[in-house]
Amino acid sequence: MSPSPAFNFAAGPARLPDAVLERARDELFARGPDAASALERPFTDDAFRATLAHARERLAELLALPPNYRILFLAGGALHQFSLVPMNLLGDARHAAYADSGYWSRRAMAEGARYADVVLAARHAGPVPLAAPALGRWALPAGCAYCHITPNETVDGIAYPGLPDTGDVPLVADCTSCFLTGPVEVSRFGVLYASAQKNIGPAGLTVVIIREDLLGRPAPRVPAPHCYRLQAEHDSCVNTPPTWAIHVAGLVFDWIADAGGLAAMAAANRRKAERLYAAIDGSEGFYVAPVATGHRSGSNVRFHLADDRLTDLFLAEAEAHGLTHLRGHRQVGGLRASLYNAMPEAGAAALADFMAGFARRHG
Amino acid sequence: MSPSPAFNFAAGPARLPDAVLERARDELFARGPDAASALERPFTDDAFRATLAHARERLAELLALPPNYRILFLAGGALHQFSLVPMNLLGDARHAAYADSGYWSRRAMAEGARYADVVLAARHAGPVPLAAPALGRWALPAGCAYCHITPNETVDGIAYPGLPDTGDVPLVADCTSCFLTGPVEVSRFGVLYASAQKNIGPAGLTVVIIREDLLGRPAPRVPAPHCYRLQAEHDSCVNTPPTWAIHVAGLVFDWIADAGGLAAMAAANRRKAERLYAAIDGSEGFYVAPVATGHRSGSNVRFHLADDRLTDLFLAEAEAHGLTHLRGHRQVGGLRASLYNAMPEAGAAALADFMAGFARRHG
Repeated sequence: MSPSPAFNFAAGPARLPDAVLERARDELFARGPDAASALERPFTDDAFRATLAHARERLAELLALPPNYRILFLAGGALHQFSLVPMNLLGDARHAAYADSGYWSRRAMAEGARYADVVLAARHAGPVPLAAPALGRWALPAGCAYCHITPNETVDGIAYPGLPDTGDVPLVADCTSCFLTGPVEVSRFGVLYASAQKNIGPAGLTVVIIREDLLGRPAPRVPAPHCYRLQAEHDSCVNTPPTWAIHVAGLVFDWIADAGGLAAMAAANRRKAERLYAAIDGSEGFYVAPVATGHRSGSNVRFHLADDRLTDLFLAEAEAHGLTHLRGHRQVGGLRASLYNAMPEAGAAALADFMAGFARRHG
Repeated sequence: MSPSPAFNFAAGPARLPDAVLERARDELFARGPDAASALERPFTDDAFRATLAHARERLAELLALPPNYRILFLAGGALHQFSLVPMNLLGDARHAAYADSGYWSRRAMAEGARYADVVLAARHAGPVPLAAPALGRWALPAGCAYCHITPNETVDGIAYPGLPDTGDVPLVADCTSCFLTGPVEVSRFGVLYASAQKNIGPAGLTVVIIREDLLGRPAPRVPAPHCYRLQAEHDSCVNTPPTWAIHVAGLVFDWIADAGGLAAMAAANRRKAERLYAAIDGSEGFYVAPVATGHRSGSNVRFHLADDRLTDLFLAEAEAHGLTHLRGHRQVGGLRASLYNAMPEAGAAALADFMAGFARRHG
């Protein structure tokens, strides 16, 4: 029934690179000279510390990380960071700014509002067409602790075409669904974070990258494992970190480096996204992408059928072709194809071909 | 050099059952009809919800869980719970009680003191011999929100021989290193929690079991994914949970059930611990266990050499015999053999035999 190979377009947890899964599988029950596998090894052991250092150093290389930034590997997901950011960055400030670019930025803002007086820094355009907030210089109150953005909106399919100018106010970015999809100018950010289950590895791990001068502001009641400063002082080992997830993350970073680094990821991701958006734009209105050109996400291609009654049929036929997890987020409906680093170009091509065929059969 | 099989006595992350590692390995790169493996499947997918329900239901069976308790699968470790407990249980109360039974209970108390006026409910005996706090009725202030205990101290090797009577004050227990090692009367507890990396599965996951009437007290600022009530309402899916760790936890629960359940675990664990303590007590003072009989942990057998200068030699020779990760926690030094459920009885026997031989050669 299903042609081989099949492709999973889930928004996260999402497909991981075949080479990473193969190696993680082969190592899972391979106990070392210390009688422990990567899943069973104490986090205080030198071998795990080497695993952690490898992941940290390889990630720093991929990002060309400036020396005044620290990498933290923390338990949990981006939603945890929605609280950890104000807990760690507000200090004595009253205000924090948030840009509303879609669903996840609003979730971040709602959490932030429990700690700070939230200022709306900018808002996306829309509803038709949707677009990222206008860039340029954003007016922020004096003494604003940080300005939070979501450069890629996983649910809405909106991506910022650039970065705003927030002056002296540190830019904090939830990069969950665009992390490592292309080169990033880290020095533009005070903090950037990404949960693992899109482009890093297993769910339950989040990477936080923070400029060192921002480590000095933790609130008195921030829980010990959530204190960025304490975690930086203890190399992410204030308590047992998600050891195996960090091990797999290191394998993913190796895979990206072997494939040519972030520039190569960006080039392949561009080709994949262009192929799908071309299938949408060339369908004579059969498929509709609600986001304006130039603001469309390369990670999460959001679209719908002009005739919504065909959506379930589309999903059923796609699945029969081995093209799975294409339903849009329940908040917005429609369809969504997530094209993270691990999605082969053949996957995007197979989906584009299927879309053209479905449009011919039902258009 | 090293005889086969080898045994890893780490306190956690620790050895997992061979059968669980085998199955997790075989499934790791086995993509299902939806083109996703267990590591890649969206947490909103029916297949993952079935995995989650399986783990929850199987755990409830193992524990004979009363119907007014809820099981949560949360990201992070026990140290996270040290803050989550006061955040979720204090309500309008000012006081929380903590018993000091050793290192981890004091860490819990230190975190609790940032949220509550902490009352010392009881204290361990010692330093020689060490013993759990005396039981009986503990005097607690009126309106005390909860009383926190650590039934098994991983570092100190102390185990409570029973439970205290805290009257109407809910008993909260960090069961990390004794969870599932034997039957437990859940109805005696308001909350019990355990991080996964001893007896449940991969690090980065914590199980919280809470009596339903205690779900109504979250502090206004508890981060969304840390709110017990919200997580209970959303079946642990307020955000992406550590999906694969939950999958593996389900495999571990199956393994325990297949092996005869918690009574069978308790019987095997008792035999393993008795074997090691007999090796210590029968060594004519060559090995010393600092904890009083009746208070000795079955999970974490703590001992040292009467002549501490032999410790490094002991560790080196043990490692050459494939008996690894036996060094005591840096806070207390000496030696420690952790005997969680996944440690085969042959492991305890091999260590006891090695200890006898080492004592003969160097005594």
